[in-house]
Amino acid sequence: MYVASYLSGYTDGEGCFTVSFSPRIKLRTGWEVRPSFSVSQNADRSEVLQLMLEYFGCGGIRPDRSDRTLKYEVRDLGHLLERVIPHFERYPLLSGKRGDFLRFAKVCELIRVRAHLTEPGLRTIVELALAMNISGRRKFTAERLLEHRNLKL
Amino acid sequence: MYVASYLSGYTDGEGCFTVSFSPRIKLRTGWEVRPSFSVSQNADRSEVLQLMLEYFGCGGIRPDRSDRTLKYEVRDLGHLLERVIPHFERYPLLSGKRGDFLRFAKVCELIRVRAHLTEPGLRTIVELALAMNISGRRKFTAERLLEHRNLKL
Repeated sequence: MYVASYLSGYTDGEGCFTVSFSPRIKLRTGWEVRPSFSVSQNADRSEVLQLMLEYFGCGGIRPDRSDRTLKYEVRDLGHLLERVIPHFERYPLLSGKRGDFLRFAKVCELIRVRAHLTEPGLRTIVELALAMNISGRRKFTAERLLEHRNLKL
Repeated sequence: MYVASYLSGYTDGEGCFTVSFSPRIKLRTGWEVRPSFSVSQNADRSEVLQLMLEYFGCGGIRPDRSDRTLKYEVRDLGHLLERVIPHFERYPLLSGKRGDFLRFAKVCELIRVRAHLTEPGLRTIVELALAMNISGRRKFTAERLLEHRNLKL
C-alpha cells in the first residue's frame, strides 16, 4: 500500500517517538508516564499531517507552541497500541530511529499491563525512555526521575 | 516496492529540489544553471542517505558545511533525468512539494534541450526556479538574474 510505506518514510524523517514524565504527587511512583507519537511540519505544508490523521483515524493536529510548525500527535494509549505500533511493525522504519520505535513499543506495552505503577516497572521505563532520542533535550534526569520513593537505577 | 515508496515519503519530509544560478561571464546568457536534488540528515543517522545512494545508484553523500548534517545530492543532469525524475513520477510526492518537483522536472527538460542557453529559455527557467522552495533564501532576485543581456521578466 503506497500511502502506508510513504508515511513510514515520512516518519523516519520528521517523526518522533517520545515518553515524557510529569511529577504527580498523588501517584505511588511520583510520576505520570506519557508516551507520544508525533510528526511535525511547517504550517504551510500540512497535507501529509492531514493524510496521517486520516490514515491512522486517531490523534490530532495542533500548532506547536515552540516554533511555527504544526504537529500531528497521538497520545491515547489504546490508539498507540492498536493503530500506530502495528503500523510501524508492518511498515518498519529503516534508520536508527527504528531502535527508538522498538523501545517506545515496549514502554507502551509496560503501561498497558500497568507496570508503570510499580517501582521496577517505572525503572525499566525510565531506562528505555532515556535511551530514546539521545540528541533531544530532557527535562528530568534518570536520578531525578528515580529519586522519588528512593528508587535507584 | 517498499523502499521506493518509503524513500518518496522520506523525501517529502527531508528532500529538496532546487535550481541555482551562478554568474558566468563567458556564457551567452551570463548565468550557469544548476539543478540539484538533495536530502539532508543528521550525521549520526545517515542510514537512509546510504539507502538512497544505493537505490538511485548515483549522486554522493557529503557533509553540509552550513550545519552538522550530511547531504545526499544528485547534480548530474543525466542522472536526474534518467533516475531521479522517473522515480518521483512513479512514486509521487503527496504534499505541496510535488509542485516543486514538477517545476524541477520542467527545468531539467529545458536544460536537456539546451533552452537554458537562450534568453527565452533562461527566462522560463528563472520563473520556474523562483516559484520553487518559496520559504527558502535566494541569493539572486529575478531582476538580478535577468538584468544580464537586458532580459526582463
